[in-house]
Amino acid sequence: MQNQNPRPFNFSPGPAALPQSVLERAASEMLNYQGSGMSVMEMSHRGKLFMDIYHHVHQSVRELLKVPANYKVLFLQGGSIGETAIVPLNLLGKNTKADYVVSGIWSTKAIKEAAKYGDIHLAASNEAAWNGKAAGTYLPPSEQWQLRDGAAYVHYCDNETINGLEFLTMPLPASKAVKVVDACSNLFSRPVDISQYGVVYASAQKNIGPAGLTVVIVRDDLLDQAHAHCPSAFSYRLAADNDSMYNTPPTFALYMAGLVFDWIREQGGLAGIAAQNDAKSALLYQAIDASSFYSNRIDASCRSRMNVPFYLADESLNDAFLAGAQAAGLLQLKGHKSVGGMRASLYNPTPLAGVQALVAYMQDFEKTKA
Amino acid sequence: MQNQNPRPFNFSPGPAALPQSVLERAASEMLNYQGSGMSVMEMSHRGKLFMDIYHHVHQSVRELLKVPANYKVLFLQGGSIGETAIVPLNLLGKNTKADYVVSGIWSTKAIKEAAKYGDIHLAASNEAAWNGKAAGTYLPPSEQWQLRDGAAYVHYCDNETINGLEFLTMPLPASKAVKVVDACSNLFSRPVDISQYGVVYASAQKNIGPAGLTVVIVRDDLLDQAHAHCPSAFSYRLAADNDSMYNTPPTFALYMAGLVFDWIREQGGLAGIAAQNDAKSALLYQAIDASSFYSNRIDASCRSRMNVPFYLADESLNDAFLAGAQAAGLLQLKGHKSVGGMRASLYNPTPLAGVQALVAYMQDFEKTKA
Repeated sequence: MQNQNPRPFNFSPGPAALPQSVLERAASEMLNYQGSGMSVMEMSHRGKLFMDIYHHVHQSVRELLKVPANYKVLFLQGGSIGETAIVPLNLLGKNTKADYVVSGIWSTKAIKEAAKYGDIHLAASNEAAWNGKAAGTYLPPSEQWQLRDGAAYVHYCDNETINGLEFLTMPLPASKAVKVVDACSNLFSRPVDISQYGVVYASAQKNIGPAGLTVVIVRDDLLDQAHAHCPSAFSYRLAADNDSMYNTPPTFALYMAGLVFDWIREQGGLAGIAAQNDAKSALLYQAIDASSFYSNRIDASCRSRMNVPFYLADESLNDAFLAGAQAAGLLQLKGHKSVGGMRASLYNPTPLAGVQALVAYMQDFEKTKA
Repeated sequence: MQNQNPRPFNFSPGPAALPQSVLERAASEMLNYQGSGMSVMEMSHRGKLFMDIYHHVHQSVRELLKVPANYKVLFLQGGSIGETAIVPLNLLGKNTKADYVVSGIWSTKAIKEAAKYGDIHLAASNEAAWNGKAAGTYLPPSEQWQLRDGAAYVHYCDNETINGLEFLTMPLPASKAVKVVDACSNLFSRPVDISQYGVVYASAQKNIGPAGLTVVIVRDDLLDQAHAHCPSAFSYRLAADNDSMYNTPPTFALYMAGLVFDWIREQGGLAGIAAQNDAKSALLYQAIDASSFYSNRIDASCRSRMNVPFYLADESLNDAFLAGAQAAGLLQLKGHKSVGGMRASLYNPTPLAGVQALVAYMQDFEKTKA
């Protein structure tokens, strides 16, 4: 199997692959952005040149996600793990009650962290077998979430990056709960109805840009219920009132995100990207299911389009599988240490050709070793 | 006045100029870091390739600053404004008392933020005239700091970026106070005795690298006195125990910092850099003092080597001065909106030739307009 692409295919779970054209553009502008004689990294964030970049990124988020007028788009730092604290610090002021759904490693981190800041209730979990499905292989159906009247919000994770579980349709709990969603690894991978949410957040290093930037979308009525200990640098209200420049933003990461958003437009926007992502993940799951040499344990109703964990039937072959993949130009396929096995992350920039190359390699490997 | 440098001279207060060789290296490695087929931005932070980068950066900080063995070097997010909360969240647990010195805009932000988290005492300030010196033009001598017995720490700002005030010698209050120092705009600009401090912090975008990275150096005995509401992503203890990867670090900014540290070594380390910085700022202050057309209001004992604010005697000429500077390839000289006038920031990467060009331009401008 020859890799026709000049660069290897990179299945990193994050920080993840970026479009080649974006990297080429960034390299070409590194010493002299648009004739300014400066790198984007060397500009005051308050000068016109950088403010133009900021406004472009901000507007791109609004347009691509069709963000309603009564929501703010914020750019913060600290990533998803930062947000596990920043969310309750911004939303649990007078009302200290929040409900959390646990569906894997990321949502487990979120509920543990939130417990520092309020009265936190486990609304649902997938940690026990249910309805014939093994623990950890399904997502708790939203009809069964036990939400408390008067809770400030319900938090869930839209795509569990490590476990490979994704809400393929939006969970719509019956109550009027404010939904706060960790969409770190699938925001910008498909169209989404932002009006259904209170807060949506995503760190950049999956589908947006380099690590160190967090995108947070907040409904206006949620901006003023912060905890007294919320740091100013992470205050949704202060970020909203200061174009996300209450503190110096990660300017180069914002610029890169702008280039990625331009690239998403070239792919037909989120509808175009979603079609590509559906095709990519379908191809890989079909290949896994067609073989007894490979397996994926996740219920078909909630298999992630972004992260496909899989196991070799004979795990003693794991190192050989990874070494062969590396030699074939298929990088960063090792599964997370907490679950083992393999994981192919198929974020937006991973092309269909990359998945085809991976499937071909898997079939070759199986023939040699089975 | 011809600018012989192929790039303009950039006096940005931050995000600030970077060494040209660093930008060239980053551009050349953008699509393929050391034959890996990946950009540094596309690597898992837990893989060997990136861990090698991390170890290099970490070791460079230890070596350049001669960090004693009983200190940890941490890499966080949120910048200086983030640290105004992160410091008290990490240090004001059981002991809620801290003393703050106010010497300008940054230290004022710090004391206001800290007041959310503890019993905060104003130890000294320069907000009134003193000893024949006008308010804001001097630094409160450490002999006069009113420190409380039993306070967890005393916080001060080593270089007030906006006001142009710098502690040219280390303030050594008589008490055994733990010194927590905002060294955002002068860390890595000269040798410093880390053993005198409890915590030293600096955001990267002055002398270290791109915005979005914060370097924090903490003495080991201060790692375990956090407030119950300290977010995990900003916990000194968790950062120390996880190679600053409890959450995903800003990987590209770390890589850039490593390149900047290599460049500092080429300049003769911090001693070499300090000599350059002394020469640069001395040249500019001499030119200002030699003229009645320009003025700097700061007491000579504490004029910043990093940020030189100055005023034209006739401020109606400000726009003409800035337009002429831009045309002469001298960028980002406008003073901060809160103090007006001009400001030349002379961080490490600004060459002496840049200051010479600025002085020549100032003299030409004066001749034309005086």
